[in-house]
Amino acid sequence: MAISNRATATKKKLLAGLLEMQHEWIHVSVLEGGTQTPEFLNKNPNGKIPVLALEGGRFLSESNAVINFLATGTALLPEDLLQYAKVQQWQFFEQYSHEPFIAVARFIAKFLGLPEERRAEYESKQEGGHKALRVMEQQLQQTPYLTGNQLSTADIALYAYTHVAGEGGFDLTSYCAVEAWLKRIRSEPKYVAMQ
Amino acid sequence: MAISNRATATKKKLLAGLLEMQHEWIHVSVLEGGTQTPEFLNKNPNGKIPVLALEGGRFLSESNAVINFLATGTALLPEDLLQYAKVQQWQFFEQYSHEPFIAVARFIAKFLGLPEERRAEYESKQEGGHKALRVMEQQLQQTPYLTGNQLSTADIALYAYTHVAGEGGFDLTSYCAVEAWLKRIRSEPKYVAMQ
Repeated sequence: MAISNRATATKKKLLAGLLEMQHEWIHVSVLEGGTQTPEFLNKNPNGKIPVLALEGGRFLSESNAVINFLATGTALLPEDLLQYAKVQQWQFFEQYSHEPFIAVARFIAKFLGLPEERRAEYESKQEGGHKALRVMEQQLQQTPYLTGNQLSTADIALYAYTHVAGEGGFDLTSYCAVEAWLKRIRSEPKYVAMQ
Repeated sequence: MAISNRATATKKKLLAGLLEMQHEWIHVSVLEGGTQTPEFLNKNPNGKIPVLALEGGRFLSESNAVINFLATGTALLPEDLLQYAKVQQWQFFEQYSHEPFIAVARFIAKFLGLPEERRAEYESKQEGGHKALRVMEQQLQQTPYLTGNQLSTADIALYAYTHVAGEGGFDLTSYCAVEAWLKRIRSEPKYVAMQ
């Protein structure tokens, strides 16, 4: 059972599709305060979605930790130690150098309607977002997937907000390798389209 | 061989001490542009330290990916899948909800000397930093280490900037469980003191 919302469910929904995994979604609205209720904070004291609910009242939060946990033992998580470390490398990159720029700019534009009082913040996110896209572009010019020749949870982690980067003001047309990679993921036989 | 600088070497130095690992440090100065040279960008296109240099001209970046890779097969990285996922959960928390507040506030205060033009940013970091400390406090009131009864790379990841949070303006005296945890880590037999 996964507790999530439409905007941030991308990673897990894509993974669940690729792995044909049975699951139940419970939607939580961040904008309506659903992550700050005592009941939710009991599941994740950090008050953030998504949260994976496991048997025995156990919970796991942080989207990348969740998708790695769910993908263990499948082709989406390499057994080779250095390759698995590379998956994590890209996921930490996503959390620190990609999401805070691209996803936040998109949130301000798409969900808040780019209000005047947040325009400066929105614009301040553009440079960092393009830097992250350049780092991805450089890798994807060399290999079809972020960690090499194999689709992994690193790609799922980065796909989530890259494929909607345009909604944050990031024009992807000059990132040819990134665009080819997005298309490559969408062509996966078990790909499940996101909203 | 690890390419790092004094300010961010904490995690790997602590890990190397705990594992009695042979290594060579190469210091790189962020403030002097050492991470933006073509030579460095060839090792990590994202231009950030630390970078682990491996045999065969291979490199691994992102501090938490590096310490997990180095700790594989040791007592610092649990074999149990859910426990390993919990380690990652705390490390993603560190990257997204802790470091951008506590380490950045400390950087502005300690390394830039809290210049007037960055005072507002410094002050804006305080609330998020205290929120992160409260989340840690809540967990550490229940268990001696972040993922349970066993010291792991999650603790190393969070120790790095928590133990110097005071330099970012965060008074830890009201976080009793966090302070006890810092002391617990320092009392590890192979603990190596940081600068």
